[in-house]
Amino acid sequence: MRAERAARSRASYVGGMTHPQPAAVPVTSLLTDRYELTMLQAALADGTAHRRCVFEVFTRRLPPGRRYGVVAGTGRLLEALPAFRFTSRELDWLSDEGVVDDATLAFLADYRFTGSVRGYAEGEVFFPQSPLLVVEGTFAEAVLLETLALSILNYDSAVASAASRMTSAAVDRPVLEMGARRAHEEAAVSAARAAVVAGFAATSNLEAGRRYGLDTIGTAAHAFTLLHDDEEAAFAAQVAAQGPGTTLLVDTYDVKRGVELALAAAGTGLGAVRLDSGDLGVLAQEVRAQLDAAGAHDTRIVVTSDLDEYAIAALAAAPVDVYGVGTSVVTGSGAPTCGMVYKLVAREGRDGALAPVEKRSSAKTSVGGRKTAARRRGPDGRAVEEVLVTGPDQAVASWEPEGGELRALHVPLVTGGEVDLSWTGPQGVRRARDRHRASRDELPRGARRLSADEAAVPTVTLRLAGRD
Amino acid sequence: MRAERAARSRASYVGGMTHPQPAAVPVTSLLTDRYELTMLQAALADGTAHRRCVFEVFTRRLPPGRRYGVVAGTGRLLEALPAFRFTSRELDWLSDEGVVDDATLAFLADYRFTGSVRGYAEGEVFFPQSPLLVVEGTFAEAVLLETLALSILNYDSAVASAASRMTSAAVDRPVLEMGARRAHEEAAVSAARAAVVAGFAATSNLEAGRRYGLDTIGTAAHAFTLLHDDEEAAFAAQVAAQGPGTTLLVDTYDVKRGVELALAAAGTGLGAVRLDSGDLGVLAQEVRAQLDAAGAHDTRIVVTSDLDEYAIAALAAAPVDVYGVGTSVVTGSGAPTCGMVYKLVAREGRDGALAPVEKRSSAKTSVGGRKTAARRRGPDGRAVEEVLVTGPDQAVASWEPEGGELRALHVPLVTGGEVDLSWTGPQGVRRARDRHRASRDELPRGARRLSADEAAVPTVTLRLAGRD
Repeated sequence: MRAERAARSRASYVGGMTHPQPAAVPVTSLLTDRYELTMLQAALADGTAHRRCVFEVFTRRLPPGRRYGVVAGTGRLLEALPAFRFTSRELDWLSDEGVVDDATLAFLADYRFTGSVRGYAEGEVFFPQSPLLVVEGTFAEAVLLETLALSILNYDSAVASAASRMTSAAVDRPVLEMGARRAHEEAAVSAARAAVVAGFAATSNLEAGRRYGLDTIGTAAHAFTLLHDDEEAAFAAQVAAQGPGTTLLVDTYDVKRGVELALAAAGTGLGAVRLDSGDLGVLAQEVRAQLDAAGAHDTRIVVTSDLDEYAIAALAAAPVDVYGVGTSVVTGSGAPTCGMVYKLVAREGRDGALAPVEKRSSAKTSVGGRKTAARRRGPDGRAVEEVLVTGPDQAVASWEPEGGELRALHVPLVTGGEVDLSWTGPQGVRRARDRHRASRDELPRGARRLSADEAAVPTVTLRLAGRD
Repeated sequence: MRAERAARSRASYVGGMTHPQPAAVPVTSLLTDRYELTMLQAALADGTAHRRCVFEVFTRRLPPGRRYGVVAGTGRLLEALPAFRFTSRELDWLSDEGVVDDATLAFLADYRFTGSVRGYAEGEVFFPQSPLLVVEGTFAEAVLLETLALSILNYDSAVASAASRMTSAAVDRPVLEMGARRAHEEAAVSAARAAVVAGFAATSNLEAGRRYGLDTIGTAAHAFTLLHDDEEAAFAAQVAAQGPGTTLLVDTYDVKRGVELALAAAGTGLGAVRLDSGDLGVLAQEVRAQLDAAGAHDTRIVVTSDLDEYAIAALAAAPVDVYGVGTSVVTGSGAPTCGMVYKLVAREGRDGALAPVEKRSSAKTSVGGRKTAARRRGPDGRAVEEVLVTGPDQAVASWEPEGGELRALHVPLVTGGEVDLSWTGPQGVRRARDRHRASRDELPRGARRLSADEAAVPTVTLRLAGRD
């Protein structure tokens, strides 16, 4: 029976082999700023709530020094969308608190998003102004999604953007996500997912493993050694339970002695030793020499002490086999949010025509009008520039990039309220991971340098001709 | 019926008037690092899993320049604890994935925490090494809580620690939490709660309002103005829906004209105007003069553009009435996690006696032995030092601070597996908020300066005499 369950479980991770189902998600409709609902009430009252609108998600700038961002969370947003419903629990509370009037409560009771969403595929790299999501529907149905869409994309993309620099710095060595304890408990699950989108090999987070079909890892902490009367007893217990292929943590007392005891407990078939403190470069050299001298040539060295992309890069020449990253990946390595905004760029006017709109006060200006986007590639297949296309609405809607030189960046995510489930669940993570690898490989040479610099490619705006 | 619901709803916010119930929380047991379970398996096999253990949560240092931290999340941890159970959903997945063996699955199926937890009251300020949580139980039951406890306390405390600096800088002006869009959607709910613990007046986050009985706020975004054919139409619609006491956002086009139109729409009884861009200090001066000249002396000015504690302090002399803070509070204003750790400090040895343990490798050393803590106050009632008390286990357990000079910091949170519900739910937030205010008021003069400095008081260790 266990074998049968395992087969079923594995099958569900294989894209296309089973019908993909979005994860069961609790009601998401109150994960929303109050002003979305008060705007809705006022707009329902004067009839503007039913105007057709286009909202776009973009970021005005990358974090200082970053050369590209990575879109993540798209699959989670699509999983959360069908759960954006107002049940009696939410309606009763909104009524009790007097947040909105009865007409608005009646609207919310029937609410479901029936519009469309296009956007960058999850895993795609992005630059300032890239229209990452284009949400179309009535004002009423589209405005309500602002907070939820931004919460998910801002956090997940912050993690993926940092994680991509780490996997890039690690080159071919696996990087493991171990940051759950340094992030909100639910954010930690999303962080593990986003890290895997950006190339992490596995996560310590069990719920992330269960929910998204990720590989999970982990063997023992210092507490396990301290629990025992001595290191010998701890290693013996761990090898007895997990076999000699396990990873033994060798730095609770003295590393040299720890490695000796680890080899005594597991033999030269020991899977790995983990170093979690000290000067990792020097220690790794010493431990590698010690392992090799003992004949444990296949025993790997895992390092895990407060690593970030710079520490990973600094260990490039050290005999390290695997990196474990915690705090820095779940907190976006200095950029814990992406600063994405959700802006109304076009709306139906009194005349029924869709018209571009934009804020015009001193700062935070945005470019009005519906947009689409493509990435121009040079003869070597590498990205040259991000091309935003705007202009008359019909022209934008029907614009197709010509040939292989321009790669279209928008994919349909929601059509007439129907979510494309192929972006969700474990399959969505796999697609996103593949997309990220291909997208990052397409960046110009030098774009993956960690040193501070401008965006890897410039963003240009192509204004289509035609009646506006 | 609505009035009845409202009365019921209000009653539930009043501490002691209704029996407090923890919020319904989904199963939390897989919000855990895999190594907790693999350690459990090995310890069950060799019998050490049943050794009595003491784990402590503390942080080795404050973020650079910070003078104190604020404990938050304790109530949420107590709400999450009864939901730390392994149902068939979790057990099946662990079995399918081969994470642990059948004996461990059987243990997990019956798992519930039956130990005790003492700790700093939620809202209390803390310093490096403060033993924020002391968890006692068998290794098996206590080790499993590591990741969940740290996730909750690290994130919530990071937010509360930043939020406290903001409310401190704002002095008597209200500060509103509006950061949901810049944090993971569930983290955002916890951030709103933590901000209120640290003195924020209200939040834009509806789910936080519903779950924790917080006041919610929000009126309109720029999208509402842009949706309409002009600013006049937008303001008229908003005033019609929300009354003249609403807050009108006046910076979509031209601020001066926006204020004129706002006053035209709502009259001099207009509740407030909101400024979300530009040089807020200068704009606030101009807008105040304009409002006063029009006789709108009671119309308040709300400012909301990328504020943090420094920007709030810089506006102290400006005629600002309310601050709205987003990104910086939900991301901990530069310190998005607290770096708290969960360390085994004592465990039953082969002889059945509880013995202190500590890691002894080169870095990350911690002090072994069970601890309790008190804050020493000077003759003016202000904190002078953090006193950690350690020594023989019985002596620590029975230690009581003498007189008013030493204020004991540990309170019982879980006793014999029973959660003290008075720390949970809306009542828990109110208690934490009161505790924070009193605790912060007790800090030495100058401790609330924003400029970088050492911890506001030193931490000293008092070693009790007696048989160790």
